[in-house]
Amino acid sequence: MSLARCLLVQTEIKEFIKRCMLAVGTNASHASSLADVLVEGDLRGHYSHGLNRMDLYVKEIQAGICEKEGKPVVEKESAATALVNGSNLLGPVVGNFCMSLALKKAQDVGIGWVVANGSNHYGIAGYYSMQALKKNMIGMCYTNTSPLVVPTRGKEYTLGTNPISVAAPAKDGDSFVLDMATSAVALGKVELHARNGRSIPEGWGCDANGLPSPDPKAVLSGGGLVPVGGSEATGGYKGYGLALMVEVFCGILAGSHYSKYIHTWRMTNCRANLGQCFVALNPEFFADGFNDRMSDLLYLHRNLEPAGPNMPVMVPGDPERRHNQSCRELNGIPYSLSVVKHMNEVASTLGVTPLLPTHRLLQ
Amino acid sequence: MSLARCLLVQTEIKEFIKRCMLAVGTNASHASSLADVLVEGDLRGHYSHGLNRMDLYVKEIQAGICEKEGKPVVEKESAATALVNGSNLLGPVVGNFCMSLALKKAQDVGIGWVVANGSNHYGIAGYYSMQALKKNMIGMCYTNTSPLVVPTRGKEYTLGTNPISVAAPAKDGDSFVLDMATSAVALGKVELHARNGRSIPEGWGCDANGLPSPDPKAVLSGGGLVPVGGSEATGGYKGYGLALMVEVFCGILAGSHYSKYIHTWRMTNCRANLGQCFVALNPEFFADGFNDRMSDLLYLHRNLEPAGPNMPVMVPGDPERRHNQSCRELNGIPYSLSVVKHMNEVASTLGVTPLLPTHRLLQ
Repeated sequence: MSLARCLLVQTEIKEFIKRCMLAVGTNASHASSLADVLVEGDLRGHYSHGLNRMDLYVKEIQAGICEKEGKPVVEKESAATALVNGSNLLGPVVGNFCMSLALKKAQDVGIGWVVANGSNHYGIAGYYSMQALKKNMIGMCYTNTSPLVVPTRGKEYTLGTNPISVAAPAKDGDSFVLDMATSAVALGKVELHARNGRSIPEGWGCDANGLPSPDPKAVLSGGGLVPVGGSEATGGYKGYGLALMVEVFCGILAGSHYSKYIHTWRMTNCRANLGQCFVALNPEFFADGFNDRMSDLLYLHRNLEPAGPNMPVMVPGDPERRHNQSCRELNGIPYSLSVVKHMNEVASTLGVTPLLPTHRLLQ
Repeated sequence: MSLARCLLVQTEIKEFIKRCMLAVGTNASHASSLADVLVEGDLRGHYSHGLNRMDLYVKEIQAGICEKEGKPVVEKESAATALVNGSNLLGPVVGNFCMSLALKKAQDVGIGWVVANGSNHYGIAGYYSMQALKKNMIGMCYTNTSPLVVPTRGKEYTLGTNPISVAAPAKDGDSFVLDMATSAVALGKVELHARNGRSIPEGWGCDANGLPSPDPKAVLSGGGLVPVGGSEATGGYKGYGLALMVEVFCGILAGSHYSKYIHTWRMTNCRANLGQCFVALNPEFFADGFNDRMSDLLYLHRNLEPAGPNMPVMVPGDPERRHNQSCRELNGIPYSLSVVKHMNEVASTLGVTPLLPTHRLLQ
């Protein structure tokens, strides 16, 4: 695998993704919504949920398992809740619609809890929870996903990496942004170790017999990811419980597909019909001084004495903030050249102008 | 430590706890609320949150840091939310008040999100989330607690074991009940290993330098518990992030004490002023068929082929259900004789009739 990297400017990546999505017939504003969330994923350093995944969305549109245009539909509604049919549109279209609805309700009654069925992969969950920050509200977002995670004591995967994201505003634009899979690690990390011929730490994955395995290939062929917490002795059943909790908020409330009924990862033989959950919570309906306390909570943790040198204590969102900052200093987002080459190959099959990545090669 | 056990009948333990709490001047209905949640903790096998903790509540009332009578007060309210001042009453009094309010709101608008300040320790979080099951709703409950958990990369504890509980109803009285600390294990487990001179698995706790330690005594003297996920490499920062999330829902929203400002565990020199969060979510406001899907989700996991013999795959709430069932078969709750003796000593200082534990000794 080539380690060469190149630097791309945000706008050119967005335009590229839009070109590719338009070429397969996607509605322009939908293509734009997808480009925004994928580039935000890369900016935050979550490369597994950015440009790297564009081919997935292209294939889903091409296979006809995801709609090119249409609108999400509110099926049930109260002052504080809604059930939305995502009309099998691209995940970001459904996500933006639902989060915006949740924020409106939270403006009026303090909370909006919106659940969608008929949705698709939507990029990083944090993109939606963070939309609440602009309104000085707490945002939450959950989604079910294709099964990859093996329950504690089991040997077969039945749950997705089912992420939890919670964003909360502090003072002066600072914030808390939790955006985590309920598995110990993402699939991409295991794939990277397999490609590099390296073993993985105990607590990342298991083999086809459900036993902890240091071999990434065993995890990827018949085994699966392990819930956060690792083995039963170290609390893996808590990660398993959280993955199920996300499924309750998503597939079970939404009446979408759930758990092992969701299609296999990267298969395009049927609709995903994912369930997703979007929540906005308005601190104005609770105790005064929320932002001050939030800033203090972040401050006191960031300023703890670290256990080791050059390992500062951080709060959720800090690693992403640093990556974002380094992109700003570089005037672009660094990408692995192999990812860019692969996406250019996809573009070429679509007859689309490629990215021109070689104008700024990085070490 | 004596391993001898005795069997006590639910009603006699409840009456005993009530007698002790009344002896220190607690309002009768408040004493009764406390007895109910402590016995429920024991019935579910969470002995660290049951009779074993009665002395804590007695001492807090005696020290005058917890009120003997009064009512929680709603300070702010919307159709879907409320901020409650717990009036420094016993945690279960605040918890029952808030959960009942959340359920009423969820009946009307689909969700009730209630946050309390001025509260105290309330026993098992699951006691409150499970109140939603009787109304066929989803219940959630969170609380901050005295600091015991060391953030990832830190060496000083700043966060409580900040539990998350989510209960969801399935068909025919079956349910999903997640009730977990966001630390890898509870303090009680580490204490038990220290008492028995046994080492603890990596990923349970750290020493005063913030380094993982197999020595329970190092964890208990200057070290601390580790967030679920263990070390940074195995995802401990996720458990740390979840503990902070609970703090956002509790202390930060409620304007109570939070994080390291909460008094040291078992110290009675100042009020706890805990922040707590109680949520009810009504599935009727979302897709039809919730209970059927919930039952199917539980069924498909309970019936997975296990990785090892005699280690069936379970769902959250199953271990507690089994413990409860075994108590029913025994016609009582088994207790360690040393716990009963200790509580009888407390009772004797209060001039209260003791428990009579020796009428049914267990092997």
